Amino acid sequence: MKKILLATSILAATTGFAAAEITLSGDARMGVVDYGNDPEFSARARVRFTMAGETDGGLAFGATFRADQATDAKGNEDMSAGTVYVQGEFGKFEMGDVASAAEAAFGDLDGVGYTGLNDYSDITYINGDGGDADSRGSVSLNPVNQGTGSLFSYSNAGFGFYVGLFDGVANGLSSVYEDAGFDASTVDSDMSYSVALSYGTDTWSAGIGYLANGDFTVDGTTPGGAPITADADGAEQIIVAGSGTFGATTVKAYYSDFDNWYFDNSYGLSVTYAADALSFTGYARRDSDVLAALTTDRTDQDSFGLGVAYDLGGGAALKAGIVDSDWEDDTIFDAGITMSF
Amino acid sequence: MKKILLATSILAATTGFAAAEITLSGDARMGVVDYGNDPEFSARARVRFTMAGETDGGLAFGATFRADQATDAKGNEDMSAGTVYVQGEFGKFEMGDVASAAEAAFGDLDGVGYTGLNDYSDITYINGDGGDADSRGSVSLNPVNQGTGSLFSYSNAGFGFYVGLFDGVANGLSSVYEDAGFDASTVDSDMSYSVALSYGTDTWSAGIGYLANGDFTVDGTTPGGAPITADADGAEQIIVAGSGTFGATTVKAYYSDFDNWYFDNSYGLSVTYAADALSFTGYARRDSDVLAALTTDRTDQDSFGLGVAYDLGGGAALKAGIVDSDWEDDTIFDAGITMSF
Amino acid sequence: MKKILLATSILAATTGFAAAEITLSGDARMGVVDYGNDPEFSARARVRFTMAGETDGGLAFGATFRADQATDAKGNEDMSAGTVYVQGEFGKFEMGDVASAAEAAFGDLDGVGYTGLNDYSDITYINGDGGDADSRGSVSLNPVNQGTGSLFSYSNAGFGFYVGLFDGVANGLSSVYEDAGFDASTVDSDMSYSVALSYGTDTWSAGIGYLANGDFTVDGTTPGGAPITADADGAEQIIVAGSGTFGATTVKAYYSDFDNWYFDNSYGLSVTYAADALSFTGYARRDSDVLAALTTDRTDQDSFGLGVAYDLGGGAALKAGIVDSDWEDDTIFDAGITMSF
Repeated sequence: MKKILLATSILAATTGFAAAEITLSGDARMGVVDYGNDPEFSARARVRFTMAGETDGGLAFGATFRADQATDAKGNEDMSAGTVYVQGEFGKFEMGDVASAAEAAFGDLDGVGYTGLNDYSDITYINGDGGDADSRGSVSLNPVNQGTGSLFSYSNAGFGFYVGLFDGVANGLSSVYEDAGFDASTVDSDMSYSVALSYGTDTWSAGIGYLANGDFTVDGTTPGGAPITADADGAEQIIVAGSGTFGATTVKAYYSDFDNWYFDNSYGLSVTYAADALSFTGYARRDSDVLAALTTDRTDQDSFGLGVAYDLGGGAALKAGIVDSDWEDDTIFDAGITMSF
Repeated sequence: MKKILLATSILAATTGFAAAEITLSGDARMGVVDYGNDPEFSARARVRFTMAGETDGGLAFGATFRADQATDAKGNEDMSAGTVYVQGEFGKFEMGDVASAAEAAFGDLDGVGYTGLNDYSDITYINGDGGDADSRGSVSLNPVNQGTGSLFSYSNAGFGFYVGLFDGVANGLSSVYEDAGFDASTVDSDMSYSVALSYGTDTWSAGIGYLANGDFTVDGTTPGGAPITADADGAEQIIVAGSGTFGATTVKAYYSDFDNWYFDNSYGLSVTYAADALSFTGYARRDSDVLAALTTDRTDQDSFGLGVAYDLGGGAALKAGIVDSDWEDDTIFDAGITMSF
Repeated sequence: MKKILLATSILAATTGFAAAEITLSGDARMGVVDYGNDPEFSARARVRFTMAGETDGGLAFGATFRADQATDAKGNEDMSAGTVYVQGEFGKFEMGDVASAAEAAFGDLDGVGYTGLNDYSDITYINGDGGDADSRGSVSLNPVNQGTGSLFSYSNAGFGFYVGLFDGVANGLSSVYEDAGFDASTVDSDMSYSVALSYGTDTWSAGIGYLANGDFTVDGTTPGGAPITADADGAEQIIVAGSGTFGATTVKAYYSDFDNWYFDNSYGLSVTYAADALSFTGYARRDSDVLAALTTDRTDQDSFGLGVAYDLGGGAALKAGIVDSDWEDDTIFDAGITMSF
């Protein structure tokens, strides 16, 4: 005996008070991907819970997480998925698996393919939103020991202002220290934070952000077996980003400089052209002076993506994409359908 | 502050457009089981998400999975639970943890008990729907390395036509190769597939199906320690099945022949008699020439089940069953209540 | 495309029949905690499914579990989260991760803080509701091998009567046996049970409960390596509890005596004073003659808590608390917001 959730308009029509409510939304996709081996089927389906309420004094509050994140959102130690928030005229304050201030302000380049094709269009941020952290070949860019984070956002008259804070986020160069005999799981780091400022109109936006991971200490042993500890400077990142819409064309671009990080700098550009239901996206990105295989050899790693999407209406779209990246052994591509509910 | 999901009729009454929607359904059961040791309590509760939408062009699309499957349905590598589909006049195309073509066409014999009592009434299919795969004593019939699958279904004028495809499904005789020193986790297999055709009226149906698992390669070591690989033929299965309703009595039967599989053949029959809210079910099944303890001793293994169910209305039913199977050390039985929401 | 669940009143207005239904509710919290190290962010969000139906004969039935418990509620072996029930004039019969009879009758003292601050206000019960079991320093009070449980509740004319039953619950002193070289995971115990009786009016309630864990056997090895088994008496507990409301003040108290348990006895008291949206709570509790570090040294362990809460309306509340416990190295405190949806 199935129960049907109603379309949005009903609530307003039938209830005159600000009731706490839970809404469900979902997404799914299926298609074929080729990561350099044979083509193979790839599909997924997800459901998201969104809870919202309002206090007598008019403060909005709520929380959100996906069904597959339910255990991590319970967060007995750290809330590593989903977010909880309060929101008022002062802005919005979120806690949980929040994005960094800079990601909240700028987001990512436009991606390609129905799966995202390893998301090289995602801008790299050194802290925030652990689930968004990237792998690059054998190098995991994931921060370790990133506790429950918090993010404050305020926007007014085109300006956006963002501050993010984490109890602790290790440098991110954990594999370097692990290779050197240190135990990255014992990382004890100072607080990490991020700030960002953006300004935009209907047709363009621009902004600047700064992120700093806490200095940290790891435990290890010398070749002779004696325990030693090491202090290290946390990673730092500065990023400028902007976007503009010129008729049917949207352009996004960023430049980011890093200290104590896997890259020396990174920059990229995406262009999306939309014609009715059809849209084309291309992006180019360079990660410069990369720690290759975590040695001292430093190389530039380039990634290029091309994609096409056709909106079928009702929440469904056909998408295909192709990515050529120095981080991949082969050109990768996919084609499939995406759905939102 | 609880939110109530409405009964089905509301949506149609209040919205005139084809909105994407998410519905919840659920099931639960509780009672007492005896698997040969002492009787013990056994209960469970589950919730299912069903998402459905329609494109502007009239193509239906959707996805479904249970709350307990949310992580596996997310399917970053393989979607090992839940399914995603598109459906139109051409038929239905599903991806994910799909059934084989033959299972989609024939299903299973009628089961007994409120828990299913180890599901000997389930017909064995050599690929598809990993969650449905069976254990028989110490032998796991589960295929290994079964990637995201796909299933195409088309029915018209009583005919049903089904094709299933998997990126890779190992033979299933993995324990045999493991005992011989090979590593089943490294199985590299060709594509596996299944086809089925059925025809039916209101009172009877019949069909035939064929399933073939890809030939495969496993890695291992000789007694001397040298690495060796082995090539092996994938399993094959042919099955005929039918059902008929004679007044208050429904009969289902199947015969299946296997190659390179744990059984040489398998056949069975179930009979269900319904009298108002009461129904009685019995089944008999033989798995012939079974690899006993994975040696060359081949025996026939018989299973018999008897069950009774009483429909309480509103989605609840009382059920009890007893199963005597050569696969079990003891006669097993259960009695309890099932609920659907 | 989001779907909104309706506020409660709609169902009654639009459907005249007793339909099975699924409701969603949720809770969330965020704030800052200090467990003796630096203050840190702590947040969580949860969603609960509640399913309910009614048979043609008027028997109510249903089930409930949270999204993060979906896998444990599926309960293929044991249902270790969530419950399933039938309810009628005879009372309510539940199965799953049920509370003990005594916990169902008395509950817990009033807690403090937005997180509960390690829940020293929770009364210790030797069986039932595994998720509620406590840790005390290095001592885990969790029962082991607690199978699917059942609980019968009946209330009439102010009287409440409760009986709980578990297939098997080990003594709880598992660490003692593990330290002695036995394997607690092989515990084979007799049935465990609990009974409780309560009586109450609008302004006061009182009751008595008795809990007994089954005698059990564990396997181990002698220092010489020979396998031995040990028989042990299950833990026993007797508890009296009461509560009373005096104007704006609510007082709860309990005294509990144990045999074969980590404590010899335990008693405590909580007082909550409510003034409009504001409320203040304090509790004191002593666990007497505790097995310190599981040796024969026996000490008393005291815990004190103070908390304040301010109801913001709409399901949100501000809460702060401080706890000083002999079980903790430092005084611990928290401050944050709680939300219910």
